Amino acid sequence: MSETNTSIEQTAVNTIRTLAMDTVQKANSGHPGAPMGMAPSAFVLWTKIMKQNPKNPAWINRDRFILSAGHASSLLYSLITLSNGGLDIEDLKQFRKWGSKTPGHPEFGHTPCVETTTGPLGQGFANGVGMAMTEAHLNAKFPEVIDHFTYIMCGDGDLMEGISYEAASIAGHLELGKLICLYDDNEITIEGNTNLTFTEDIVKRFEAANWHVIEVLDGTDLDLIEKAVNEAKNQTKKPSLIKIKTKIAHGSPNFEGSEKAHGSPLGEEEIKLTKKALNWKHEEPFFIPQEVKDYFNQISKKFEEYENEWSLKFQEFNNSDKEKANSLINAITGFLDRDWNKNLKKFTPEDGKIATRKASGIILNEIAKIVPTLIGGSADLAPSNKTELENEKDFSSSCYSGRNIRFGIREHAMGAIINGMFLHSGVKPYAGTFLVFSDYMKPAIRMASLMKLPVTYVFTHDSIAVGEDGPTHQPVEHIQSLRLIPGLTVLRPADANETRTAWETAINNSSGPVALILSRQGLPVLDTSNQDGKPELGGYIVDNCEGEPDLIMISTGSEVHLCIEAKKELEKRGKKIRVVSLLSREIFEKQGKDYQERIIPPKVKKRLVVEAGSSSGWEKYAGDHGEILGINKFGASAPGGTVLNKFGFFPVNIINLAQIVLNKE
Amino acid sequence: MSETNTSIEQTAVNTIRTLAMDTVQKANSGHPGAPMGMAPSAFVLWTKIMKQNPKNPAWINRDRFILSAGHASSLLYSLITLSNGGLDIEDLKQFRKWGSKTPGHPEFGHTPCVETTTGPLGQGFANGVGMAMTEAHLNAKFPEVIDHFTYIMCGDGDLMEGISYEAASIAGHLELGKLICLYDDNEITIEGNTNLTFTEDIVKRFEAANWHVIEVLDGTDLDLIEKAVNEAKNQTKKPSLIKIKTKIAHGSPNFEGSEKAHGSPLGEEEIKLTKKALNWKHEEPFFIPQEVKDYFNQISKKFEEYENEWSLKFQEFNNSDKEKANSLINAITGFLDRDWNKNLKKFTPEDGKIATRKASGIILNEIAKIVPTLIGGSADLAPSNKTELENEKDFSSSCYSGRNIRFGIREHAMGAIINGMFLHSGVKPYAGTFLVFSDYMKPAIRMASLMKLPVTYVFTHDSIAVGEDGPTHQPVEHIQSLRLIPGLTVLRPADANETRTAWETAINNSSGPVALILSRQGLPVLDTSNQDGKPELGGYIVDNCEGEPDLIMISTGSEVHLCIEAKKELEKRGKKIRVVSLLSREIFEKQGKDYQERIIPPKVKKRLVVEAGSSSGWEKYAGDHGEILGINKFGASAPGGTVLNKFGFFPVNIINLAQIVLNKE
Repeated sequence: MSETNTSIEQTAVNTIRTLAMDTVQKANSGHPGAPMGMAPSAFVLWTKIMKQNPKNPAWINRDRFILSAGHASSLLYSLITLSNGGLDIEDLKQFRKWGSKTPGHPEFGHTPCVETTTGPLGQGFANGVGMAMTEAHLNAKFPEVIDHFTYIMCGDGDLMEGISYEAASIAGHLELGKLICLYDDNEITIEGNTNLTFTEDIVKRFEAANWHVIEVLDGTDLDLIEKAVNEAKNQTKKPSLIKIKTKIAHGSPNFEGSEKAHGSPLGEEEIKLTKKALNWKHEEPFFIPQEVKDYFNQISKKFEEYENEWSLKFQEFNNSDKEKANSLINAITGFLDRDWNKNLKKFTPEDGKIATRKASGIILNEIAKIVPTLIGGSADLAPSNKTELENEKDFSSSCYSGRNIRFGIREHAMGAIINGMFLHSGVKPYAGTFLVFSDYMKPAIRMASLMKLPVTYVFTHDSIAVGEDGPTHQPVEHIQSLRLIPGLTVLRPADANETRTAWETAINNSSGPVALILSRQGLPVLDTSNQDGKPELGGYIVDNCEGEPDLIMISTGSEVHLCIEAKKELEKRGKKIRVVSLLSREIFEKQGKDYQERIIPPKVKKRLVVEAGSSSGWEKYAGDHGEILGINKFGASAPGGTVLNKFGFFPVNIINLAQIVLNKE
Repeated sequence: MSETNTSIEQTAVNTIRTLAMDTVQKANSGHPGAPMGMAPSAFVLWTKIMKQNPKNPAWINRDRFILSAGHASSLLYSLITLSNGGLDIEDLKQFRKWGSKTPGHPEFGHTPCVETTTGPLGQGFANGVGMAMTEAHLNAKFPEVIDHFTYIMCGDGDLMEGISYEAASIAGHLELGKLICLYDDNEITIEGNTNLTFTEDIVKRFEAANWHVIEVLDGTDLDLIEKAVNEAKNQTKKPSLIKIKTKIAHGSPNFEGSEKAHGSPLGEEEIKLTKKALNWKHEEPFFIPQEVKDYFNQISKKFEEYENEWSLKFQEFNNSDKEKANSLINAITGFLDRDWNKNLKKFTPEDGKIATRKASGIILNEIAKIVPTLIGGSADLAPSNKTELENEKDFSSSCYSGRNIRFGIREHAMGAIINGMFLHSGVKPYAGTFLVFSDYMKPAIRMASLMKLPVTYVFTHDSIAVGEDGPTHQPVEHIQSLRLIPGLTVLRPADANETRTAWETAINNSSGPVALILSRQGLPVLDTSNQDGKPELGGYIVDNCEGEPDLIMISTGSEVHLCIEAKKELEKRGKKIRVVSLLSREIFEKQGKDYQERIIPPKVKKRLVVEAGSSSGWEKYAGDHGEILGINKFGASAPGGTVLNKFGFFPVNIINLAQIVLNKE
């Protein structure tokens, strides 16, 4: 540690180090090395730089802190504990135990002061870009009261993942000057020294992406770190990367600088030696010297003052423009009038064929006028995804108030960015791409689901009906694959009105992401004269028969229309057929048994499920006596109608399959 | 076009352009713009630079060509047609039609001379890195006969995707001097000019990754292009990026330089105008001037000479070292002795508990000694994935013959790189990471499946039993999600011997990827005294009962042991229980009905399926009368045993569930 550091600061840094290593040791599991190396930087950020108030982690204008290298969780938990942020020593002792507030990786919504769930590398970095984008947006709209920084702490792993390059590229393009990333350049990953595989020039790489790069050659020198962060704060037109040379497991006589300290406890003996090397006098684990407690209590007072100052500012703002202040509060709380959707367009069969992606574009634009927090875009497919908000500007460095985001061909970053945007609070983000490319953003969809973030995905071109672009662009397994993600609501509407319902669901939803699965091809608007139940309940009877059906057809999206066609012919043959549109299995399965059994009576065992995608997962609806018309191989390049026919998606084939089910014993 | 280009060359370039635009026009679907802009570069590569022989696309030492921007397929098809590579004008006229040799995006195995399937952006670029890695490896082992270049043609979209950064980073690190990428810098993507979102400094970016960068400011100047490629070829220690300024839809009076020419036919009228602007005299579509045919026929002769020269070299090599030549032939053909696996380790219960990841490491190392083409590694998790080959060197710039690849924390690139490595032919690659991070490489797994590439994935830490690392690191939906991908074989062995079987399957398999799903935790070696059927058939009876069972437990991996425990107690209660280990549903479902019904008799309706993952997809095995013990929510951070207990994965709960099924009517 540099000479210039005062004794109390040095002690505080070592407190963070010892807490982190004791925490990991007690759990007998975890990652002690990175926290020990990054303790000085984290200390500087949390005590000298950041304007936050850990006692009130909901303060809207707080500086954000993201530990992208989530495995270093004991660092964050130690900071939260010292900062009176809602954890205490007992929590640290419960690290990685069932039901504790201190899980292996930081979990948003579970532990106070944790801004986002991290662990899957690179995503936290992109979350930070998203938070800085929301800050820029709200700052443009509410400069009176929103103006703060976003800090990321990341490691080599984060910077090796493709998502971090994507996110850095867009952040540089957008000139997000209030985004500052502290890079823990400890040269160690699990397999060994980074020179084994990661030798690119980080400085040049970030400069190429329009970032300001600062190097701190001694990551234990608190003054150097503070100076670097202040230099970064002064960059108004570029995000900053501070490359900080550190040693993993700083202070450990046997493991400092070694990959052995990455993912395992140091061991009691080595902890003793390390504490000695750090000149730490206290044998007792989890020891916090009184002077350090006092120091952080002082900081806590400063933190409260920050928030109090801001509160006065907000009051002033509220007094001078109550309506505007209210609109900010509504944005933060997600408030909407109960009947906000009453005037959304109702489509009729006379509207002709409308692709659900097109209907989505119409409804999205109507909603955008009602819901000012709605903001989003596509990964370079806006004209195809119909995600563009008409008469709204691009979100850009010259116009952060713009609501159309050009994410570029960066699906993974897009997914993690909208997670960060929502996490900041104040916006309701959406993101579009072709359904087949949901694979590219899958890890971010999983994190949205895990964090229960109500972001919206607009996935168009939803089946082999994509046609000519061929199997690389035709989703087959994707709808079922998305349905497997816990907490994700998947909606595949069959017509323009169901699409409206799907968007209403997405907007009303306040917990967990929603994926809209939309057709490329035009679809008729369904006749409502023969319906029963409600689409907003996830499944309903879209075309009923008199009395108890002989067979129930269960379908989604474009295939509902094929079932209705087939039903007509089967009725001529004297069969009673019910067609059910199951636009969202997740929502339908949340309804009461009464409703579910009204729509799909258990006693009607003859069933035919039709969906242009994997059949696996539909068996519970088909049952032992039913059949499934699905697709369990890759598609092919030809006009959409041809491909559908070749794969059996035409009425006569459905009639034949229905007949097979009807003829079964 | 520059003055220095000869008239015939200019005509040939325009032939490529007009063929591409006519092809798209006839299909009334496709992407004419990029082919028209890249025609000069493609012409130079295919006629002046590359040593290939399109008449024999299997020639092992050919230069490889990857059109990473797969949407520009009409460019590639035009080149193949002109080069007598197995397509003709009729094929071009069938572009994007059912059953044609010219699908919307280039498909490996479907169209001659197509080296890899492209379309999902960025992956072709990473495939190219993989091909260059195999070339470097084979060149190190067989310098006598293997020595060629790998050329990639890519666009803005490729370079915006994170995977291209990951792949560029490792390619630069590995100093792949024979990898040359031509970047179509046309500044246009679907949403408009790249200045909307993609403004990073490409030159600096690639230099930061240790690439040699050359700029060609006029992408119509054939001499400049040729000079640049030759400069790149002279770089022996760095891969090269040639940044070529082009205009999308070059020659089109109304669409040149516009995103409108990206993804739609130009239209008959605009084609007329364009041909006029190009000084193209022939109104007839798909016209190839005789002089151009003659020109390419000359080139074809040169191509044949290249191969003939090489054949002589190979003969010489064969004469001087027959054994070595044979080992190359075996590597290329994938030949193995029929009983190659006879001496692989058989585990016994006395071996104690062995995690299947550990057994995998043991078997993998045994196989590596027998199968010299086996090469692979992990995305920085080798110590955890047990993927390291002992006594083998790292694959590095100073040792391309090494067989341990350090992929770095770059899962997506890793997936696409091993695809490219296999596509080159001569190696049998594998790649490891945690199962939960299979999401990061999903798009590449899909492409391996689509291309039917027999690569192997080593996915360890396969359930909530991961424990302390928590829900971010605990797969839940992943096994089912992988099972949904058509053509992917998923194997989840229950013990060390099943793990041997899984690896044998992976090595014997010659069509489609294989995913091994392996436990973190130790598992006993199964007692074989009570077994029936064979694990290599995907499912077998692991613990049988006398006579017809009252209930069948169907399980995979670590949960098989819980079922065996539960069976013991149920037997004490007088119940006859059969336990089936279904280590691979895909393989089991390929067996004859006889075998399937011997293992799981249809008349035994009482079934309990147990797998620590999503239950969706298991209904077809459980049936209407069965139950499934699965996990349909996210995991939690705590020791693995605790998490398993909390989620119901312990014998008593399985006994209770079995009793519920047994008690059903």
